[in-house]
Amino acid sequence: MELLEQIGQRAKEAELLLCILSEEKKNQVLNRAAADLVKNTERILKANEKDMADGRKKGMKAGLLDRLLLTPERIEGMAEGLRQIAKLPDPIGQVIREQTPASGLKIRQVRVPLGVVGIIYEARPNVTADAFGLCFKTGNAVVLRGGSDAIHSNQAIVEILQETLRSCQCPPAAISLLTDTSRETAAAFMKLNRYIDVLIPRGSARLISTVVENSTIPVIETGSGNCHIYVDETADLDMAAEIVYNAKTQRIGVCNACESLVVHEKVRDAFLPALAKRLSEKKVELRGDKRACEVIPIRKAEEADWGTEYLDYILSVKIVDNLSEAIAHINRYNTGHSEAIITENADHAERFLREVDAAAVYVNASTRFTDGFEFGFGAEIGISTQKLHARGPMGLEALTSYKYEIYGNGQVRR
Amino acid sequence: MELLEQIGQRAKEAELLLCILSEEKKNQVLNRAAADLVKNTERILKANEKDMADGRKKGMKAGLLDRLLLTPERIEGMAEGLRQIAKLPDPIGQVIREQTPASGLKIRQVRVPLGVVGIIYEARPNVTADAFGLCFKTGNAVVLRGGSDAIHSNQAIVEILQETLRSCQCPPAAISLLTDTSRETAAAFMKLNRYIDVLIPRGSARLISTVVENSTIPVIETGSGNCHIYVDETADLDMAAEIVYNAKTQRIGVCNACESLVVHEKVRDAFLPALAKRLSEKKVELRGDKRACEVIPIRKAEEADWGTEYLDYILSVKIVDNLSEAIAHINRYNTGHSEAIITENADHAERFLREVDAAAVYVNASTRFTDGFEFGFGAEIGISTQKLHARGPMGLEALTSYKYEIYGNGQVRR
Repeated sequence: MELLEQIGQRAKEAELLLCILSEEKKNQVLNRAAADLVKNTERILKANEKDMADGRKKGMKAGLLDRLLLTPERIEGMAEGLRQIAKLPDPIGQVIREQTPASGLKIRQVRVPLGVVGIIYEARPNVTADAFGLCFKTGNAVVLRGGSDAIHSNQAIVEILQETLRSCQCPPAAISLLTDTSRETAAAFMKLNRYIDVLIPRGSARLISTVVENSTIPVIETGSGNCHIYVDETADLDMAAEIVYNAKTQRIGVCNACESLVVHEKVRDAFLPALAKRLSEKKVELRGDKRACEVIPIRKAEEADWGTEYLDYILSVKIVDNLSEAIAHINRYNTGHSEAIITENADHAERFLREVDAAAVYVNASTRFTDGFEFGFGAEIGISTQKLHARGPMGLEALTSYKYEIYGNGQVRR
Repeated sequence: MELLEQIGQRAKEAELLLCILSEEKKNQVLNRAAADLVKNTERILKANEKDMADGRKKGMKAGLLDRLLLTPERIEGMAEGLRQIAKLPDPIGQVIREQTPASGLKIRQVRVPLGVVGIIYEARPNVTADAFGLCFKTGNAVVLRGGSDAIHSNQAIVEILQETLRSCQCPPAAISLLTDTSRETAAAFMKLNRYIDVLIPRGSARLISTVVENSTIPVIETGSGNCHIYVDETADLDMAAEIVYNAKTQRIGVCNACESLVVHEKVRDAFLPALAKRLSEKKVELRGDKRACEVIPIRKAEEADWGTEYLDYILSVKIVDNLSEAIAHINRYNTGHSEAIITENADHAERFLREVDAAAVYVNASTRFTDGFEFGFGAEIGISTQKLHARGPMGLEALTSYKYEIYGNGQVRR
């Protein structure tokens, strides 16, 4: 616990130096860090091999082992991520607004770093370099709490980045890693308001809800996506099948994958059999309400299905009588992530866009596009499903706050 | 608890109607609400008299009784607040950014309401109408939890506003009040994530920290201000005395009042005696460090003084050797609210603006200007001392989020 206090304090001290670094200096450090990671490939792989051996000993599943595995190519990918971040424009110092009210004060709203960013994440060690790059570019210090499964890999990466910082005369506490991965330390970390300005959890729905429930630090909730596609009575049914097929099967384990289908009863008979055939190519299991089961031979959906993010080859199907019912169903069960309507009717499209409450609402496109790169941000720290501060894909700007800089010449308040 | 669930659910349902109201309709309701409050002056005063009688019976202090008291003038003030809000431009629907990435999708970032806003506040009943006005204008539903001391006044105001809403064919659940003011209900309210999108506490430092520590809903922390003024070696000492006098004494119970003075040792001898004389007009008690006490006969400051928001006629005084020491002292003890430097040196001004970590940083002006009206926002829901979402005075925009509306023509992700 004392160590935690010390890590927080050093991060805060580092932050006071980071927030005034020039863009040029920051880019120089990022490029140097990329080179240093590649140069130390052997060292990282050796540390990663320890984690992999521990994982195999513990009987970790193949999917998780693959997420944990580092290779020379994956290390080059981490380095390339840092080089890309170096190329993005620096938002810090940008003047958002300027005004001169009656008092004659000159008020400038200027973009500044958030301060010290805490990140709690699970087994993917590439997040370590990634989070450092995004935070460093925006003048933030970052304190990482990774999973115990990746502890050796994370430690090696953080040590190398700290060596880069030192050799560039930057405070090494710009990045720090909690090496004690106990629950007690995680719990204390979530209450370190004195040093940490914002906490971003990245990982499973369970991890995220633990952070939301236990943190006293402001949290940006990311991740879980129970995404719907509504096939309107006026939909182009070929387009609808193509989009549902893409959103459900192109990558199943991601938050912007489609988990539930809502279909207008007028197109039910024409659409469902064709769709079921298309989805059978990938052996997708459909679970439908009563009216869906009347048309195709599928399992009946339980109440729990409507609220489930499967992250699997499963799709629930609900039949509705009209657009209002579709919107109400989606607003009841969605997680505020990504929702789509397939329609040829412009009024229906507009109503859906306005009334569905989610970060990203699509007309005639796959929900899979919700991501910082597809949105042109050049980078992504996560996808926010809350409404405060940042919503949807978060790029560099989401890691900033602002301050008011005010110039007077003796003004006092009357 | 069941009632709480019901209130949350109704607010959420109301929100789906509020978020699509036109600006014209919202302004019409606000003006009607203003008229209805004035028309029901007798009814509000009668309810307020019950609260006042209870307060007197409980031996409430004069200052608190005055905050609780409503008069025809104060009710007219509440009404005028609503009329002013009606005149402000509506931020909802504003297109913040538009882009068309390589996929050909048309992506529009559009301003939307936060959703359901929870407000926990203390004895001032005028907050009730004020919070409604700001939330309604921005398409948010509001759930209020006021103090038990003002329960009859708050109930009367909320009932009248709900009557206005009904008569305008708007959902009365646009505003609701928790009439059960027990701690248990407050605790359950702070965990109502399913219905409440953001919680804003308004009141004492203790109230605010209780909310920050116990809420699982995202909180906007407002309020406490341990504000400093630093008198640089190059300061115009007459201007400095005038500004310190204003920031300390113009209104003592507010968060943007000056609580601590930091003085360069080179101007110590010339400045402190003159300032002490000026402040003695208002009987301000000074508490200084060793070097301050050498020049003027004042009480010695304890360590606790540097971190105290007095909200009283007391000012702590710290002597420093240079600008760096001043900035470090302020960054250690401030609450991220408002800080000022008095200087004639432009480089010192710039360094102070960049390196002091606070919502509002002033050069040669009183900290008392940190407020939504002085900043030209036309209204204020509070002053944020956190960095997430909104920082400093919060106007209508702070009550909004955004969504991405995306138009495609069949795009799928490869």
